[in-house]
This record gives sequence, structure tokens and C-alpha cells, in this order.
Amino acid sequence: MRLSAAALAGLFALGAAGGLLGDQGHVASGTTAYLPSSKGVPFVWESPLWFPVLVGLLTASLAEVRLRLAPTRRAGGAEDGVAAIAAVPGLYALTALIRHQPLGAATVLIYALAALTWRALGDGAPAAACGALAAIAGVIALVAAGVFEYAPGIDPLGGVPPWLPALYFAFGVVVARLGELCARTDYRGARLTDERRGARVR
Amino acid sequence: MRLSAAALAGLFALGAAGGLLGDQGHVASGTTAYLPSSKGVPFVWESPLWFPVLVGLLTASLAEVRLRLAPTRRAGGAEDGVAAIAAVPGLYALTALIRHQPLGAATVLIYALAALTWRALGDGAPAAACGALAAIAGVIALVAAGVFEYAPGIDPLGGVPPWLPALYFAFGVVVARLGELCARTDYRGARLTDERRGARVR
Amino acid sequence: MRLSAAALAGLFALGAAGGLLGDQGHVASGTTAYLPSSKGVPFVWESPLWFPVLVGLLTASLAEVRLRLAPTRRAGGAEDGVAAIAAVPGLYALTALIRHQPLGAATVLIYALAALTWRALGDGAPAAACGALAAIAGVIALVAAGVFEYAPGIDPLGGVPPWLPALYFAFGVVVARLGELCARTDYRGARLTDERRGARVR
Repeated sequence: MRLSAAALAGLFALGAAGGLLGDQGHVASGTTAYLPSSKGVPFVWESPLWFPVLVGLLTASLAEVRLRLAPTRRAGGAEDGVAAIAAVPGLYALTALIRHQPLGAATVLIYALAALTWRALGDGAPAAACGALAAIAGVIALVAAGVFEYAPGIDPLGGVPPWLPALYFAFGVVVARLGELCARTDYRGARLTDERRGARVR
Repeated sequence: MRLSAAALAGLFALGAAGGLLGDQGHVASGTTAYLPSSKGVPFVWESPLWFPVLVGLLTASLAEVRLRLAPTRRAGGAEDGVAAIAAVPGLYALTALIRHQPLGAATVLIYALAALTWRALGDGAPAAACGALAAIAGVIALVAAGVFEYAPGIDPLGGVPPWLPALYFAFGVVVARLGELCARTDYRGARLTDERRGARVR
Repeated sequence: MRLSAAALAGLFALGAAGGLLGDQGHVASGTTAYLPSSKGVPFVWESPLWFPVLVGLLTASLAEVRLRLAPTRRAGGAEDGVAAIAAVPGLYALTALIRHQPLGAATVLIYALAALTWRALGDGAPAAACGALAAIAGVIALVAAGVFEYAPGIDPLGGVPPWLPALYFAFGVVVARLGELCARTDYRGARLTDERRGARVR
């Protein structure tokens, strides 16, 4: 593994906490509702127990995938980590806040913000690959799971809102950045090499 | 011309597509409505045929104007182009989403975001000049055209919303950036010279 | 003083004008209301006379505090100043626009944007210290003053909205940046030294 056990545990905890926070906003605003059939398991806050576990696992494994895809950029400061961590709950909250607004404009706004997140935090292709992976895996998992449903009127994309892939794309970009920031020092060689590349690319 | 025929055509197509998307959001949210007198021409989506043509022409010519105003910065990555392209539909969508909110706060928000767009994408005076040009030309054209109207209550600025100049300013800044990114390699000399200036300015 | 008299006066005027603008948005949207007991003094726009004076004094003194905390970064361009000045009214306007939305999601969004403001404009610890100082002083002053009240339903944090500390934190970060940009040239020595540090940190 290119992430230490501590980093993996931290990313798992962060993803689980973020999942709970985002889900709470979506349930409280009526954006999503869990179906009665999903109520057989214990709930944490507004989510069934398995939801934060799933998001936590996805977060830790996507960060590991990022480190195997390409060398990382120079480490970046604490600001980068804080901004990356803030971006996803911020976008989640925004989708909850515009839940009753026209869906077309809401969708355009979320895709635009996902693109800006990619520009602000991403390193081009590797970040885009993690974003696309998160979007595809996330939407397929949700459609396949069939345990909750989005509110009528915002679910024309096979049962999920059209802005959902953009939200998950931004999540993937953020996790890729966190993976870079948490990379084990064993991989510092690759990182030093990449520093020159990073300087050129930016 | 400092833009190749392909770049001019691409910018025209991009502007036309963006104009259709933004207009659709504004019409769907009731922000604007075309007057009956404007319905004599074929419509594309929610816009009369001439609207995307006009926005496309404005996009291509403003990008050319930018290249004649001042040397360009170093080329920038694909992220810059994607972020620039995303910013305008994002702002358009936001104006549609806050259409029923207090106009004063909505206006302050859009001007603030236009200023942040200028800081994130612009290169100072040349970008500001393109933004101002777009704002003045756009608002005058709309007021003079008299073929559509903004919803009552959001049109105190001579029939257009007070946030419209800021939206067009951001559009002009974005087009200036796209112009820089599309500049013909014949102008690479000017660009290399400017790279030092760009490094100092940022 | 590390700020010239002209800079202090300018920051006072800027803070006072920004306070009037932000307060107007909050009063017009029903986010805040001044209690009858506060109506004994002359009002400017929607605020009692002492409110812009208080915000102006806080702005000028916090900028001076920033310059005593740590050396400044290299000067930065006009874009930085404009973006810093735009960020606070933008955030104020946003809190007014989401006044009727679910409070949890609104709060998450404002904290996320405050974190992004810190990343975009701040220089790490000194900016965060100014932000924390503004948040603590601002919220305590408001609770102690007891002259206006936030709308029922958005005031669970001892009478103020839970997003208010984040709004004031962003204000503190912005003022710290403005303080850096206005630092007297007498302190250029410290700034040059810091340029190397700034280059390393970013």
C-alpha cells in the first residue's frame, strides 16, 4: 500500500463523517429519502449504518488508487487539505439548498463548480480519472442498491439527479488530492521528481 | 487575424452553444421572456435563431480583440480552458436560481463572483478591458434590441437586471482568457516575452 | 503604526461601507432586525450610526494587528485586493439569499466557503489567527450588545446563526490580506525577507 495504515484509517473516518454530514443535508432537505425496505438496519443520524462505512471505504481505496495512477505533486500546505475537505460538504450542501429550484440551472451550476474544483485542486488527467471513477462507481452503486430514492422531479437520470455525477466527480478529485497529501514518505522519490513536473504544469 | 480560422469557428460554436444554454435557463426560470413581436423567426430551443449567432460572433470577435490589446500569458493548461468555459454557464445558472430572491443581495453576489472570476482567470487590465467592453456592448444591445424583457421586479436598470453588467463582464474576462489560450503560434514570440511578465505579475 | 494614516482611513471607510452594505442585505431579507430599543440613534440606510463606525474601527485595527503578527507576503496585484474586497459582501449576500433554506445545509456551505477563502487569500497561521479573532470578537460583541436579533429559526447559537462565526472568520482573513497589501514601505525589509518564505509556502 502506498498509504500508511494511519492515513487509510484517517481517510476512512473522514469519508464516513463526510458521508453522514452530506446525507443528513440531503435527507433533511427532502432531496433523498430512504425507502422503508432499508430501515431494517440501525441508523446513524439520518443514514443506515452501512452508508458511512461504504463512503469511508470508497474514500480510502480511491486515495490509494490515485497514488498508483501517477506520481504526486509536491506536498502542498495545510490550506490545500482544508480546502479539499471543505469542498465536498460545501457542494453537497449546495445541492440540498437548490433542491426546489429549476433542475436545469441547478445542474449547470453543479457541473460548473465540479469543473472549477478540478482546476483548483486537480493535477489534470490523474485527478480527472479519479473523478470519473467516483462518478461512474457511485451512480451505478446507487442505482443498483435501490435502497433510497431521490425526490420526484429531480431524478430523471435513471432515478438519480442529473447533477449527481458532477458531485461524485468533485468528490473523486478531492480524494485524489487528499491521497497525494497523505502519500507515504517512501514515495518521496517519486514526489521529488514530480515537483519539477508540478512546477511546469501549474 | 491573430486567431486561426479553426479557433474562430470553435469560439463561435462555443459562444453560440453557451448562449443557448444560458438563455434556456433564463427563460425556464422566468428570468427573461421573449416578447410576442420577436416570435416571427425560427426558434432554437428557447431562443430565436439570431440569439446564438449574435453571442457566437461576439465571442469570436472579443477573443480577437483581446489578442490585439496586449501580449498573452504563457499558454496555461487544459484546466484553465475548462474552468473558463465552465464559469459563464455557472454564473448564468446562478442568476436563474436566485431569480426570486431579494435583488440587492443577488446583485452583490454576482458582482462579487465577477470580481473573483477576473482575479482567477484574468491578467489585469487587458482582461478588465474585455470585460468592460462586453458589459457595455451587451447591455446596450439588449436595451436597444427590445425583443425580450426581464421579469418585473428585477429590471430596474433601464429594463435589465442590475447584475447583468457583472454577468457580461465575467463573460468578457472568460473570452479574453480563451483568446489567449487559442492564440496562433505565430504569436508565440510575444507569448514567450510575456512569460516573464506573467511570472512577475502572479 | 505599521499602516499609514491614509491606509488606516481607507480601511476604516472600506469597512464602514461594507458593513452598511452587508447589514442592508441582512435587514432587507429579514435575516436580522434591529430591536425597538436600538432606534434611539440616527440611522444610515438600514443601520444605526454606530454600526458602520464599529465595523470600520474593527477593520482598521485588525489590519494593524495582522502586520504585528508576522511578516507580510510579497505585495500581490490589484486583483488580490479586489478579490479580497469582493469576498465579504459576496458571502454576506449569500447568507441573506439562503435565509429561508434549511439551516444545516446553509451552515455547511458558509463554513466551506470560509475555508476556501482562507486557502485562496490567506497565508496560513497569521490569516487564521485574524479570522479566529474576528469570529470570537464579532460574535461576543453581537451577543453582548443585544440591540438586534436574528430571525427565529436561524439563531440557535446563543441568539446568532451558526454560520456567523464562519462569516466573521472570512472577514478576518480578508482584512489580514488587505493589511498586507497596505503595509507601509518602511516594512519592505520584512516583506522582502518574507518573499522567500512566501515562495516556499505557496
